Parts: sequence; C-alpha cells; structure tokens
Amino acid sequence: MAGNSFGQLFRVATFGESHGVALGAVVDGCPPGLELSEADLQQDLDRRKPGTSRFTTQRREPDAVRILSGVFEGKTTGTSIGLLIENTDQRSKDYSDIQDLFRPGHADYTYHQKYGVRDYRGGGRSSARETAMRVAAGAIAKKYLKQVHGIEIFGYLTQLGPIRGERFERDIIETNPFFFADPDKLEELDAFMRDLKKEGDSIGARLQVVARHVPVGLGEPVFDRLDAEIAHAMMGINAVKGVEIGDGFGVVEQRGSQHRDEMTPQGFLSNHAGGILGGISSGQDIVVSMALKPTSSITVPGKTITVSGEQTEMITRGRHDPCVGIRAVPIAEAMLALVLMDHLLRHRAQNMNVQTVTPKLK
Amino acid sequence: MAGNSFGQLFRVATFGESHGVALGAVVDGCPPGLELSEADLQQDLDRRKPGTSRFTTQRREPDAVRILSGVFEGKTTGTSIGLLIENTDQRSKDYSDIQDLFRPGHADYTYHQKYGVRDYRGGGRSSARETAMRVAAGAIAKKYLKQVHGIEIFGYLTQLGPIRGERFERDIIETNPFFFADPDKLEELDAFMRDLKKEGDSIGARLQVVARHVPVGLGEPVFDRLDAEIAHAMMGINAVKGVEIGDGFGVVEQRGSQHRDEMTPQGFLSNHAGGILGGISSGQDIVVSMALKPTSSITVPGKTITVSGEQTEMITRGRHDPCVGIRAVPIAEAMLALVLMDHLLRHRAQNMNVQTVTPKLK
Amino acid sequence: MAGNSFGQLFRVATFGESHGVALGAVVDGCPPGLELSEADLQQDLDRRKPGTSRFTTQRREPDAVRILSGVFEGKTTGTSIGLLIENTDQRSKDYSDIQDLFRPGHADYTYHQKYGVRDYRGGGRSSARETAMRVAAGAIAKKYLKQVHGIEIFGYLTQLGPIRGERFERDIIETNPFFFADPDKLEELDAFMRDLKKEGDSIGARLQVVARHVPVGLGEPVFDRLDAEIAHAMMGINAVKGVEIGDGFGVVEQRGSQHRDEMTPQGFLSNHAGGILGGISSGQDIVVSMALKPTSSITVPGKTITVSGEQTEMITRGRHDPCVGIRAVPIAEAMLALVLMDHLLRHRAQNMNVQTVTPKLK
Amino acid sequence: MAGNSFGQLFRVATFGESHGVALGAVVDGCPPGLELSEADLQQDLDRRKPGTSRFTTQRREPDAVRILSGVFEGKTTGTSIGLLIENTDQRSKDYSDIQDLFRPGHADYTYHQKYGVRDYRGGGRSSARETAMRVAAGAIAKKYLKQVHGIEIFGYLTQLGPIRGERFERDIIETNPFFFADPDKLEELDAFMRDLKKEGDSIGARLQVVARHVPVGLGEPVFDRLDAEIAHAMMGINAVKGVEIGDGFGVVEQRGSQHRDEMTPQGFLSNHAGGILGGISSGQDIVVSMALKPTSSITVPGKTITVSGEQTEMITRGRHDPCVGIRAVPIAEAMLALVLMDHLLRHRAQNMNVQTVTPKLK
Repeated sequence: MAGNSFGQLFRVATFGESHGVALGAVVDGCPPGLELSEADLQQDLDRRKPGTSRFTTQRREPDAVRILSGVFEGKTTGTSIGLLIENTDQRSKDYSDIQDLFRPGHADYTYHQKYGVRDYRGGGRSSARETAMRVAAGAIAKKYLKQVHGIEIFGYLTQLGPIRGERFERDIIETNPFFFADPDKLEELDAFMRDLKKEGDSIGARLQVVARHVPVGLGEPVFDRLDAEIAHAMMGINAVKGVEIGDGFGVVEQRGSQHRDEMTPQGFLSNHAGGILGGISSGQDIVVSMALKPTSSITVPGKTITVSGEQTEMITRGRHDPCVGIRAVPIAEAMLALVLMDHLLRHRAQNMNVQTVTPKLK
Repeated sequence: MAGNSFGQLFRVATFGESHGVALGAVVDGCPPGLELSEADLQQDLDRRKPGTSRFTTQRREPDAVRILSGVFEGKTTGTSIGLLIENTDQRSKDYSDIQDLFRPGHADYTYHQKYGVRDYRGGGRSSARETAMRVAAGAIAKKYLKQVHGIEIFGYLTQLGPIRGERFERDIIETNPFFFADPDKLEELDAFMRDLKKEGDSIGARLQVVARHVPVGLGEPVFDRLDAEIAHAMMGINAVKGVEIGDGFGVVEQRGSQHRDEMTPQGFLSNHAGGILGGISSGQDIVVSMALKPTSSITVPGKTITVSGEQTEMITRGRHDPCVGIRAVPIAEAMLALVLMDHLLRHRAQNMNVQTVTPKLK
Repeated sequence: MAGNSFGQLFRVATFGESHGVALGAVVDGCPPGLELSEADLQQDLDRRKPGTSRFTTQRREPDAVRILSGVFEGKTTGTSIGLLIENTDQRSKDYSDIQDLFRPGHADYTYHQKYGVRDYRGGGRSSARETAMRVAAGAIAKKYLKQVHGIEIFGYLTQLGPIRGERFERDIIETNPFFFADPDKLEELDAFMRDLKKEGDSIGARLQVVARHVPVGLGEPVFDRLDAEIAHAMMGINAVKGVEIGDGFGVVEQRGSQHRDEMTPQGFLSNHAGGILGGISSGQDIVVSMALKPTSSITVPGKTITVSGEQTEMITRGRHDPCVGIRAVPIAEAMLALVLMDHLLRHRAQNMNVQTVTPKLK
Repeated sequence: MAGNSFGQLFRVATFGESHGVALGAVVDGCPPGLELSEADLQQDLDRRKPGTSRFTTQRREPDAVRILSGVFEGKTTGTSIGLLIENTDQRSKDYSDIQDLFRPGHADYTYHQKYGVRDYRGGGRSSARETAMRVAAGAIAKKYLKQVHGIEIFGYLTQLGPIRGERFERDIIETNPFFFADPDKLEELDAFMRDLKKEGDSIGARLQVVARHVPVGLGEPVFDRLDAEIAHAMMGINAVKGVEIGDGFGVVEQRGSQHRDEMTPQGFLSNHAGGILGGISSGQDIVVSMALKPTSSITVPGKTITVSGEQTEMITRGRHDPCVGIRAVPIAEAMLALVLMDHLLRHRAQNMNVQTVTPKLK
C-alpha cells in the first residue's frame, strides 16, 4: 500500500506539496447521515494555521477548505468526501537557494536519494504543510465521535524546552498561543520564545493528547492494538521522535504492584496504563504523550553537502516556527481522532452483537 | 483488515493461544531463492524461549518450529511459508482459578468486554506466547536482510528498573541472562532480580534495538514513514508503553542547532535523528528505544472484580517472568526486521530504477 | 499486499503445496460466539474431496481438518482461527518426470519465470489442492451467514462439455457425482465421462452459484462493488476463465426496456441483474455463473519445451480429474461465502445505524 | 478498506458525484522521474467524453483535468499525484423529478437502502461520470507501462446488440464513433443506433481489451492472480455483467487437448488462455472480453416504487447514451492499465533479482 493514506475503514488519502497548487484529501468510509459543513473543518484548521501568533511561522494562508463531494443537503452520504485547500501564499522564490544542497536535519537528503528528484520548494511533500489535510479529515472523525459517542479529544503542550507545565487548567489551553495548560508559565514562555527568536534557533516540545469517554473494546489484537496504531499515527507526524501511552517511559522503574491499575466496582483505582490494556481501550481516558524535535529551519549556520556531494554551509531563511511542537497540538488531536474512528468501525464490524453482564468501568 | 497480520508486501499472519493446540503463521511475500531451514528460525526462538535462566518463566516449551510450505529443496519458492509450533507444556489447570475474575493490569477485562468471551487459559491470545511466531517470521526477514544487504539487527537491555547500563560491550550481550551490554552491572542485576523474586513482584525495563547498514531510502511518506511503522511494530509488543527513535524524548530540551545532524562528504557528524529523516532511512544506524512495563502477573495481592462485577482480591500464581523486558529483546529485533524487510520491498517496487550522483553518506 | 490472502475484515491467509507437508490457513476477523467444530468444516471438505467418485482424481486424502486456535469451549473467541490439513497421500515420485519441462496449459512455465524456482511436485502451490483451505475457511463464513442472517448458498453444474442442464431439481444436486440439477442428463453424463476417460482427455464445464436471503446493502462503491469482488473471487479459482452475474453475456443483445428489473411493492418483477444493482446487493437472489477450462493434465501427448528451452513432447500421468469443474462447486460456494461475509462486516461497520422507511423488496 | 480506492502499490482513491462540485483522485505510488503533463491525461479523457458523437450523451463537459501535486518540473516526484476535474455543466434541475422514486435497473434503490440517504442528482456517486477519474489515473499507468516496458493497451467493441464485428482492422477503431474494428459494419451500426434512439431504448455491448508486450511473471498467486484482479477491475465498471479471459465461456465445450496452448522454442502455438497461466502473465497478449448491459436510462415507461414504497411508473429524461458500452472502451483500457501497473510493481518488489536460463516465449 502506498504511504499517503491512513486507516482501514475510515480511510484518508492525501496529496499536496508545500508550494504546489493545492492540498487535497479523499476521506472514505464516513458513516452516512452526519451533518457536516466546511465550518466544522475550518475551526481546527484555524487552530493549526501558521501566522496566528508571532511565535509561529509568518506565512499567512487562509487555509480555506472546500468540501467537493460526499455531502448532500448538509449531510454525509456515505460516499467518499473530497477536500481541497488551494495554496495562495507560496513565495517560491524564498527557496531557490536550497535547490542544490541538503538542509541538515531535513528530509532533503533522504527524499533525493530515495526518489532521485525532489520538489525543493519549501520541502515539497515533506513539509508540515501536508498536515493541514490530516486536520481537516480528523475534524470529520472528531465530529462523529463526539456526536454519536460523546468522545472528547483535546491536546496541550506539557513542556517547551526547559519549561514544564505543572498545573492543569483546561480552560486556558485555547486562550494562549502555546496551547499550555499552566497559566503560571505563560510569561516565562513568552520571554523564552522571544530570546530564541533573536538567536535564530529553535526548541523541542512535549505534548499530550487525551481522549475521554472512549468506549471499552476498541483495538485489534495482536498487531493492530490501539496503542500500536496510535504510536503509528503520532510518530508519523513531522518532527515527532517519541511516543508514550499512559506512564510511558516512567514504567521502566515501576514495580508490577505499583503499575497495575486495580479494579473496583466503582472503577479503576488509577490509570497508569493510559486507558489501554492488551491493546484494547479500557474505558478510561486514553493518554498519549509525544516529543517533538526542534525544527532544523533556523538561521544558525550549519554544515552540509551539495547535491553533487561537496562540503558547504547554509542557513534557512524564510518563515519558520521556532517551536513546531506548538502547532502540532491540533494535528495530534486529528490523528488520535482518525485512529479512534477507524477502530470504532472495525470493532463494531466484528463485535456489534456482543453483550456482557459485566458492568463497564470508568 | 483484521488485526492478526503485519506488513504489506512481506506479510505475516499469525494465530495461536497460550494454552491452545499450537501457534502458527503464514509468511507471505518472501523473495524466492533464499536458503532457509528450520535451524535458521530456531536460533532466535531459543533466545526468546522461557526457562533459559532462573529469571524468566519456568515454563519449558521446546518451541520447535516446523516449516510446512514455501521452501523446496532448501530454498524459498516465493509462495507463502507456513510455520507451526505445537504447544506441549500447557498445564491448563494452573489457570482455572482466574476463570471468573479479571487480573488487574492484564487484558482479561478488555477482551471480555470486547468479545463477550475469552480463553482464560494463560491469557489466551493476549499472552506473550503469541510473540514466538513474530520471532520465527522475523528470523526469515533477518536472514534475507543480512544476506542480500548486509543489514545487521541487534538489541539489548539498557535499563532494568533502577539499574542503567553505562558501558557498551556488544560481545557480552548474548552471554548473560539479561541481554545487558554493561559487564559491570551483571552482579547488581543478579542481586536485584533475586530480591524481586522473593518479594513476588516484577519490574520494568528499557531496551534498545539497532539496525546497521540499512540503505538510504526506506520509508514511505507521509503516513507510512519508517519511524511510524517502527513505532507501530514496537508499541504492538506486549507490555511496551513508550517508543523512541534516536534521541527520543531527549529532543524536548534540545535546540535546533544542537539536534540537526550536520553533513560532510565524510558522513553525518552525529546521529540524533536515529537514522531516519523525514520518515526515510538516512543510511545511518537506526536506533530505537522502548519501555516495557512490569508484568502484572505477580504474587502480591491486588484488588479486582469478578465477571459479574463484584469486588474481590487475587494473586497470580503460575510461572511468570519477573521482568518481561528481558525476553522482549529478540521480539523487538524480529519486529524491526519485519518492518525493514517490508519497506525494502516497498521501496524497490517504486524506486528500483532511481539513480543519483550524490554519494551515499554514513 | 502479498497474494495469499483474501478479504478485508473477514480475512483468510493460506499456505501449502500439493505435495508439501501440510495445508493451512489463518482465518481472521470471525465474530465471537459462533458455535464451531471441525465437523462444520469437514462436511464441505468431503464434498470437494478427490476420490469420491470414479470421475474425479483417484488421489485419496482423508483431508481431515484441525482447528488449532480461535475456538474455546466450542465457540469462536474473535481471535484468529488456525486451520491445518496434513498431506498424507503424496506419491511425489509420480511427478519426477516433469521436473525439467513445462506442462502445457499449466502454471509451470509462468511460475518458473516469475520465481526462478518451482516446486514441481504436483504443481506445488499452483495445484488445486490449495483450494481445500478456501473450502474450510468458507465453511466458517457459510455457518455464520446461515445462522445469523439465514443466508443460503448452493452451487451446481449447469453444463459439462456439450451437455446442458435444462431442468432444475435442487434436491438431486448432492445425490449425483456431477453436482447436476437435471435428473434427465445423468446417464448421458455418465457415458460421456466414461468415453472421455478412455481417450485420456478432459472437458470444460459451466457452473452456477446462488446466494439466497442476502440482505439489501452489501457492496462498496465504486471499486469494491459486490459483483467486482465476486468476480475477483471466482476468477481466482483454478481453471476459471469467465464469470457472469445475472444474465451475464446475455445482456449484449438485450434492450434496456427488457433488462431493467421493474419494481412493485410486492417485489422485483424479474432478476436479470442477478441480485446486484450499482454494485450493491438488492435483496434478490445473487446469481453467479462461471466457466472452467478443461484441465491440461491429460494423457494425450502435447508439445512443450524443457527448462533449458528445447523442444519436447509430454503426457501427464498421475491421478487427475477429467473435469475439474465438478469439484469446483464447493469451492465456488466457499468463495461466495467469503465475499458475502466480508461485505456483511464492511457494510455494518459503516452503516449499522442506517434506517429507512422504504420496505425491503424481494 | 473503504471501497473508493483501487490497487495496492499503484493506488488510486477517487471522489466525486455526477452533479457535485468536482471529481478528483489521489494517485499514489507512481515511480518518480516519469515525464507527465495534463495533456497526457486529457487524450484519454477526450476519448471517454460524452457529447463527442450523436450516439453518446449530449452532456458537454470540457472534462479538463488539472494535476495538483506530485509533478515537479515536468516529472513525477514519487509523491502522491492529485487530480481534479470541475463539473461545469450540471443541469441539476433535470433530475428533480426522480428525487422520490427509484429508477428501475439503477442503483437508486440499493444506495437508498444501504446509506439511508442518496444524492439523487444524476445518480450521484453511482453515475458513470465517476469513471472519468479512472481514465485519468489509468493514463498515468498507461504512459509508464508504454515508456518503460513497451506495453500497449487498446480496446474496441466486438458486438453491439445483434451486430458482431467479424473483421479486425486496428487502424479504424479510433476513427469511428463506435470503437468498432470492422469497417464493414459501420453503416449498419449507424442505422441501428438511429432507430434505437427514436424508440427511446438502449442496447447492450461486448468489448475486448488487449495488452501487448506484457512481460512474463505478473500476477500473485493464489487469490490475487492477474486474471482475478482483471476480473475485479472490469466487473467494477458500471454496467459490466460478465468478464472473460482468453476463450472465456468458450472453454465449456473445449477439450483439454484442444485448449492447452502448446509450446515450442519459437513460442506458444495458440493463445486460448488469453495470456495468463496459473494467474501469472505468460508473455502472450492478454485478452479480456466483457459484456455491458443496456442502460436503464431510457424513455420507455417502466414500473417502479416511490421512496415510501408505493407503486408508480416513470421514464428517464435527460441526456443519456443509448449504448453505454461504447464509452466504456477507454475506461476498460484504463482499468487494465491500473491492474498491470500495480502488478508490475508488486512483482518486482518480490522478484527483481530473479534470473532464469529459460528463454522468454511469445
């Protein structure tokens, strides 16, 4: 299967380069009868959009998405949904100087060696611009999950470079440019980012995505466990270098007596597992963390080679985020929504007639 | 796609419960002409096998694998390879006491709620016994990768509970029961595990897998990036709760000027990326880390509920590993081999005619 | 995706050569809770089995199938079902004379050129022996379809060489060695086959498979229409050279006013479409016809070339069916069951909540 | 897998309704370095386009396709190719009268029952308008197959209603509005179609597609045989009710001694098999026939029911082909190209290193 699609039953195929004509997607397998409009998708696209604060790239795309098919009289019909965003602010000239060399830390070298040819304008297909379509498609999944099952998905930054969030106030996440949940750190973040920008450098981040009210039973043993598919989804986001479920790497020093989440008729006593047991959702919150590397698009000079193999040095000009982790929040939410949606359909295909007397725990 | 298969072109479908009749696999897509015998598979199966030291479960399975098809006159024919291991040491009676309750931290509750029925004997399909077939199938991939491309894959424990490996001596990995690479920690490990066993508790672990001499170009943008598929493979191993590529969660506090791996005609100057750029192998070592939780099969009593939803308490008797992370080393190697093999085939399907003048870096 | 598996949600992967150690399958995605025993599978295997009459091959395999996993306490658990049939009557020596040449009309030449190596014993993987596993897997699907939805699937020969069935008596199909539904032709068939056998030649056949009580709605536009998937399934059976749905090639000379099946509240007035409209089941009988070529395993001498490309002549000795179409009846039934089962699951994954006021027609 | 995509490695996902905003596709897996422009696609789109003669529908779409991604500086880059055709001549008002009833012989009833909702404008997704995207995607495959392997694909009508082609002159196929290869029948066809149009009725057709210079070895045993995949592709074209490979249904009355294609060092002595043996291409011409039903969009009144289940009668006004088989020629060519392209990639993934001393026959 070629690599530009995701999901089995709720399936998204995307196309589009950073500075090409347009980005698009085919979203296949959406249940019919869901009320859907472009506004439903635009909301998350706007959250992801560059240029919304001074700490994300200054490229200003309206990112207006159009639904080209699959919706009739305001409702999904069950046929494939075509999505399109035209690129309107491309400034290709910014990139002509990197035509003949490989930006270190980018995909330039590997694309060139894999395909023998590459669209060097803004990274082409390897640019994070591609993720706009994930967000648009994910918004459809989010709406269905919310409406039909009451599932809520939200993400936030838990760490930006050395600054860790310590308090959690869900209400402030959407009111600050960092998707941070700790109101006490906003000033520090602001100052840190201002300095970073002056230096022309970038910084890593850690973010968390949570899904609430996921029914018990999603996930397919043994290879397509829910956690395995979530890891696939998250590690496939640009710049992600690590993924954790629940306590993640914290389990290395834990004991079994401490880690296992004990059960009572009133519910689980803890959630070290992050809502997934044996690869299947348990009904608890699904908790996913990930690490995003600092972007290599910086103005600090770096060593590299040219296309013909000679030594050179370069800096990346243009409009770039000093912390790509920030904008990854809606992307990670979208990917989690896509995984849950797909597994919801897969689960009910096989098990829609299953009934048990055992109560569902929280 | 149902969840018991893995890979697109080099595809493995498995079956088998912990205490069922047998475990088996269909390995499809293997290139023809590869010399292959049961001995090639048995070697890794023996490394994974329980009962090889006093710190892994005392269940003694010969785990003798048979090749039932796909090999003729000592060579693969290109048709599907059937594999079978019969279960010979089942002791099902050990498990009858857990028939009507859910072991905390296990898949019992989620399987029960998903399917309405579960094979409670030793965890049935959710038991790590299932991974024997991954190891057998992975051994085929390993052999092809080694023989045709010189790719080497090896894994080792970098941390067991609080004990971290600090030195790296590759030669000792296979000579101690912990797959540890630091000879200075072996005594400490031995003492730690002895105490743990007395307490009837278990412990987490961190392990690393490395692939050397992987050609540049493997991985399919944008959803099936090599790192995404590796994350899928690793998070799908029982007990894994976190996966990292290269510097992993270390990137959160890194700056772009520090993280990006600069390039010279002599090669990359560092490998923070872990051998993958933009989801495509760079030709550097692929470095993967993962965290394995402490098993919940312990003799420390724990709260749980019965199938009918009533409160109870239980301990897990039987033969269990105090650190399941140890035996995961050959499993993680096998999963990495399966991913690389699949992507090697996927890559050459599309790009076998690609040529560039740019030298291949290390 | 490698070619030895079939289906998306109800997925079968098979292995095994004609004269190898065993045949096997992994059947993944079966809903849990279905009562299942080996006897359920054996019935159709016995209908397919060679050696049951003097007009099918005299190879006598007990073809006893074992269920190795996925069934616990008599019911499916939702995990993958492992199936195994050991080859007990192999007589490999019969085939040593064809080691260095290609039997005309067989897959010998194409396997050799594709893979560079081939298991020449009885055709290896290209032998129709492989279909035993389709029949075993199909029997699981058949049982579920029957039990949960009342769907009935049956097949019969409508033509053997020049002899066409004209009457249809369903009751006699299983009581004669030709799966014929016309009692008036049985003597003629018997004489025809006796003569054919003397001549050492073989003959083609046409067969029909019907599925009754299929609910309206199965089939996925636009590429995975139900008829497209049925055509895939049937054309993938050894020796099949043509597939028709409903009136099939008869439509070429029909007019629209004649072909379209008019509708009344009491039901459709005809079934030219064969139960499928726009790729989706209509609720009418699904009617599939197919043509099977005469086997090339005959004792009439034929020209061919050796592995090194030289001219030679050969005859095929051994035990062979003069009309392979006869034994294809249970195979075609099995393939239809697999398609319907898969589409039933696919349909309900997306559309389980759909309700309409429109009555379901027959 | 949702049903709007086709192929494994060369994979096409499509969207778009007859009277929606646009049609589109994502073509994934195209090898890089292929020169490609919109003109390459437009040629076949124009051959398929309605309104090119008075015997096809009078709807006039410019059908101008745009390439939105995946091509850079005139060459494919190996990333996904986005295609778009905007609908410009929609006339939705023509269809308002069929909003509340089901046209007999159409997909109206089955879509309604499957999805609970349907886009009734011109059949929505079930309209043959969807096939424009197959033709566009197929043109990419055609170009690659031709350029890299010299493979030629062409189709023609062999029968229209009662009129059969008897002579074969390849040169005239593209010069008459019927894609007929027999120059002696053109006048008769013209008269027949004129009469049919007066009557407001429609007629079936049989067409043949041929692929020349296909290398030996394409096709994946056992379920994804080349003929099985071709049957899938063809039966998935609107209105197709039967598919044959080689002699097709003619084999029913053949004997083995007559059917098998004997081999000599100079090549095969016949091609009854239609270029496929054991599901693998033999190097001979691949010959595929199919039957297309007469369209049900006719002005002859027919019985049907309303959405609420009441009896009514209707005629289909609007612009419709009296013989949809004619325009199916470029569609069938495109589908054959997609299958061959996909299998070429699948074959070389597994077998690129295979070498044999046996000469390749024609």
